Amino acid sequence: MRFDVLTLFPEMFSGMFTTSILGKAQEKGIVSLNAINFREFSGNKHHTVDDYPYGGGGGMVLKAEPIFNAVEHVVAAARAEAGEREPRAPRVVLMCPQGETYTQRKAEEFAKEDHIILVCGHYEGYDERIREHLVTDEISIGDYVLTGGEIAACAIVDSVTRLLPGALGNELSSVTDSYSTGLLEHPHYTRPAEFRGWKVPDVLISGHHVNVDAWRREQSLYRTWRRRPDLLERAELNDKERKLIERWKEEEKEKETK
Amino acid sequence: MRFDVLTLFPEMFSGMFTTSILGKAQEKGIVSLNAINFREFSGNKHHTVDDYPYGGGGGMVLKAEPIFNAVEHVVAAARAEAGEREPRAPRVVLMCPQGETYTQRKAEEFAKEDHIILVCGHYEGYDERIREHLVTDEISIGDYVLTGGEIAACAIVDSVTRLLPGALGNELSSVTDSYSTGLLEHPHYTRPAEFRGWKVPDVLISGHHVNVDAWRREQSLYRTWRRRPDLLERAELNDKERKLIERWKEEEKEKETK
Repeated sequence: MRFDVLTLFPEMFSGMFTTSILGKAQEKGIVSLNAINFREFSGNKHHTVDDYPYGGGGGMVLKAEPIFNAVEHVVAAARAEAGEREPRAPRVVLMCPQGETYTQRKAEEFAKEDHIILVCGHYEGYDERIREHLVTDEISIGDYVLTGGEIAACAIVDSVTRLLPGALGNELSSVTDSYSTGLLEHPHYTRPAEFRGWKVPDVLISGHHVNVDAWRREQSLYRTWRRRPDLLERAELNDKERKLIERWKEEEKEKETK
Repeated sequence: MRFDVLTLFPEMFSGMFTTSILGKAQEKGIVSLNAINFREFSGNKHHTVDDYPYGGGGGMVLKAEPIFNAVEHVVAAARAEAGEREPRAPRVVLMCPQGETYTQRKAEEFAKEDHIILVCGHYEGYDERIREHLVTDEISIGDYVLTGGEIAACAIVDSVTRLLPGALGNELSSVTDSYSTGLLEHPHYTRPAEFRGWKVPDVLISGHHVNVDAWRREQSLYRTWRRRPDLLERAELNDKERKLIERWKEEEKEKETK
């Protein structure tokens, strides 16, 4: 799979793209990660990539031409690399606060692609013609304001790459995959059994696996109920578990009325 | 303001912390950004930072001791740096999928602090005692699975730093600050007036500012209604705007019944 990130700050990716899982996935040939400065595709001798907005107002707007040119360049490069085989059209993803909120489902969708181009603006708006005639997706990674699209692009590259076969070695677990069971994770403990006076729960040291599993499932349910009740609506629960949650709700009400 | 990021991969931050706004904010002395390898604080001669989970099961768990030691080290360092003045206790923020979903409101809250310590795990769980006895906040930047907390930590550092006085130069606009009006942004256009046959809307070239403002507000409303209707509930709208939205809803219903 090929990722091309179009940015004015390719050096921002130097650490992220070469370290840990992303670095290894490139070494294994699972992904190719490229950070490309779209200023090189400005199409004008001053290398200008932004200009004042029509209609006035503060702020600058990224021009259409550098982005169109840069996208066409990487599409041609991907085609040349693919050789005989005609590659599928890439996804062209605009990183922007107005975009669709990114979720694990979107990561899974992107993981089926051959080529993803991520367009990063930087404290500026985009000329609307980029949205209308070039991009296939607009993505926001959350309801907070970032200086540019670069960190968001890293989140997409990382979350998609780790889903590709072979990217996570066997030595790695899916222990952090909170979304796989639909519930938040239960607590984990490791040695020492007592740290600064705080002990590991007895059940985990008991060696009684049925009890361990029951404790973990209940903890997982409880944490989800406390922190992310929205996830419970979609989770697969049995009758006993639903009753347990009802009991917690009642206990909470009793406390409140006291 | 001081940020200390505790990570097993400090090199991931080399590009992000030295470029653009974050690089400049450091040069200006507005923030100090440190990426610290908590393996150096393992407290054991093999520099082990993880171990098998009590109760069995897949995956490794980050030990409590390296994280406690590293936090205490940076707290002492911050205190020594502050000298005479007794600094406020830092926020200790755990990056994890089970955490509170990060929002702009949380960024604004963090921007009032003197010292934030961000703890990044990497494809592993945390020993629960870290949660119970050390951290003040648990944060998730969105409902997708990342390989580690490092990209999430970058999102927090960036979104908080840009709120600090002086971090964004005057030359930068708040054009991308979608959340300041409570609505998504209107479309932007810049030169050329025609690009590949696609023209800028006449109203923006008209020079009639009242019409420009009215067009922009309506576009902003329309985009928010289409893409993020949840934001409309909290936005400040006048009666005319509410009626406009009702009309769009009716038009949509008519289309559907045809």
